Amino acid sequence: MDGEPLSALCTPALVVDVSQVKKNAQKMIERCQKLGVQLRPHMKTHKTIDATNVTTANNRGTQLCSESECADIMTGGSRRCIVVSTLAEACFYADHGFDDILYAYSLPFDKVERCAVLSERLELFQVLLDHPDALEQLKKRPLRNGRLWHVWLKLDCGNGRAGILHSEPEALRLAQAIAATTGVKLTGVYAHCGNTYNCNGVQEIQAVAKETTNFTLQFMEKLKAVGITCKSSIGSTPSCSHPVQEMAQLSEVHPGNYIFYDVQQSLIGSCGVDEVAVRVLTRVIGHCPHRNQLLIDCGWTGLSLDGAGKLPTGYTVIEGHPKLKLLSMTQEHGRVEPTSGKLDYEMYPLGSLLTLIPYHSCATAMMHPVYHVHSEGVLVGKWTPTRGW
Amino acid sequence: MDGEPLSALCTPALVVDVSQVKKNAQKMIERCQKLGVQLRPHMKTHKTIDATNVTTANNRGTQLCSESECADIMTGGSRRCIVVSTLAEACFYADHGFDDILYAYSLPFDKVERCAVLSERLELFQVLLDHPDALEQLKKRPLRNGRLWHVWLKLDCGNGRAGILHSEPEALRLAQAIAATTGVKLTGVYAHCGNTYNCNGVQEIQAVAKETTNFTLQFMEKLKAVGITCKSSIGSTPSCSHPVQEMAQLSEVHPGNYIFYDVQQSLIGSCGVDEVAVRVLTRVIGHCPHRNQLLIDCGWTGLSLDGAGKLPTGYTVIEGHPKLKLLSMTQEHGRVEPTSGKLDYEMYPLGSLLTLIPYHSCATAMMHPVYHVHSEGVLVGKWTPTRGW
Repeated sequence: MDGEPLSALCTPALVVDVSQVKKNAQKMIERCQKLGVQLRPHMKTHKTIDATNVTTANNRGTQLCSESECADIMTGGSRRCIVVSTLAEACFYADHGFDDILYAYSLPFDKVERCAVLSERLELFQVLLDHPDALEQLKKRPLRNGRLWHVWLKLDCGNGRAGILHSEPEALRLAQAIAATTGVKLTGVYAHCGNTYNCNGVQEIQAVAKETTNFTLQFMEKLKAVGITCKSSIGSTPSCSHPVQEMAQLSEVHPGNYIFYDVQQSLIGSCGVDEVAVRVLTRVIGHCPHRNQLLIDCGWTGLSLDGAGKLPTGYTVIEGHPKLKLLSMTQEHGRVEPTSGKLDYEMYPLGSLLTLIPYHSCATAMMHPVYHVHSEGVLVGKWTPTRGW
Repeated sequence: MDGEPLSALCTPALVVDVSQVKKNAQKMIERCQKLGVQLRPHMKTHKTIDATNVTTANNRGTQLCSESECADIMTGGSRRCIVVSTLAEACFYADHGFDDILYAYSLPFDKVERCAVLSERLELFQVLLDHPDALEQLKKRPLRNGRLWHVWLKLDCGNGRAGILHSEPEALRLAQAIAATTGVKLTGVYAHCGNTYNCNGVQEIQAVAKETTNFTLQFMEKLKAVGITCKSSIGSTPSCSHPVQEMAQLSEVHPGNYIFYDVQQSLIGSCGVDEVAVRVLTRVIGHCPHRNQLLIDCGWTGLSLDGAGKLPTGYTVIEGHPKLKLLSMTQEHGRVEPTSGKLDYEMYPLGSLLTLIPYHSCATAMMHPVYHVHSEGVLVGKWTPTRGW
């Protein structure tokens, strides 16, 4: 379908604006260069690389365009220095020539052997842990050929999810234990400031970014005082979209969602809605004048249920139709109604296209087995994400 | 991994108890036989058939067991007379030797050509519509080789989603128009009583089942009065789990979720929790004593966000641990806390397994690229669902 307009797609369909993806990637690369920190982009939002079908329409016809691969775009073409959220992603990227991969997920005990195999196979595969029992797991499976387990210590600097609390004495003791273990190297200290997702505007984002950075740097000082040096990294799309100067003292940052952005990020203040690179195309499939509603062919299988109750326009923003609300979804249906007044059905004939801007692009992308890539509305290829764990 | 226990699986993992699946299928088959209506099972919950890996562990070792295929189980092995919710499912089943397929989704105008191809290829492919404009679409694409479009008219009998309102004069006019159109045959009248999902207990379910059936049968009488006869069908898992005698006058019923059931169905009153055939296995990956929580390796990618706010135990029921609550999920993490009191972390060491009973099995199954099939806790194979539209 390359070269055809978006309207040639059957719906629902996830469409990715590759020009916007490149802009978002380039801006983050430049921001990190200016700050002087290494960007380690997170792959969890898109989980794609495959570019065998990615072509660019140009005057000479269509042309295979390897620089259009999403993970390539994020790494500036290096295929090095990435973060993943699942071991399936780690294997997928390793199989496609990526290296220096950080599996930034509290070491799952059922996957130690698979992590060991990747550690022995890649130049640099890195794991993360936040509990002494996980270190014991690594000790039980020493790597072959003189390889070391490269380990990041996960700190909780106020996010309230995974990580050992930065202020607890156990955190320092665990770092020392990692550093003192034969066959294991303490590579870095890692904090995710997911609490930026509760922010409203740049000022609040930067306050959280500053706090997370300061807690992390204070911990690095404690490490230094006991003779340990290693890398440090914090991340989240809000904080890395509006970095504070303190972050220049970190080794790395690891945002991910910025490649697509979404309505949620625009509300937090990370981006403008015009920077969101993904949409779900849907079509009107029903008129229900007795309920003042219309039906669309996008249910939760096409959008996800993320964002419930967060927007005055329901589960999404319908582009160009600010007075339409996506009230509810079932598996394959969405119910749309006006925020006020009567629907004018002549404006929305059966078969007509509507364009949904996802509330949370990570959740929406997850629902699609294929992403349709376009440049200025012209289809240029498909990306196929990896799935599972 | 065939022959191994469930604990051999990496998590999160969707596991299907094939013995329970067979029981649920058999009970529905017998219920319909007793009632004297044709069962047309819906495939949307599982979307599987592939049994190339399905084996049964027995004394003679492992053996390929073709009767274990999920769609085969639901059709009693006939591979005939099914309903699907997407055209991807229709093609998937057609490619695997199924026929008499009803695509029970208001005819999407972007997929008319693909529907035509299936209609010309299969013995019996059937579409559904609820608007005169859809009939116009069919007229514009007459089928080749003397084939007829087989059309079901979708009625809204109180469900409030798709369908033309049963009481509107337009409904009868549309049925007459379908019946009068050259190249098109009015095959049946179809109503989905999804409003049974608001019920609490058998009595309420049966009241909705009765109402939907009566509205449908009244419509059939109106048709008869103008000289039209065709099939009739209603369905939903609650109504078909507790059918009322009036349903014996219908031609068909079309439930789907019953093959797996779930916590939602047990609360509605369709089944007992012991009849739920699917679980998500997850492992403890974090202890957070400062928050009185633990973390599991199942986020919304493994369970879906369906069921938010519906259960005192959060997004799921944790089997055997009635005092644990799945408070929240992010992409790959779940936060679990006790419903009251302090967590005893010694009961939940890192790496230990927990078993989640899904609130909505359709939504949970959708998140998994593969289902692990077991019989009495022994792995016997994998099912791979189809995805997309």
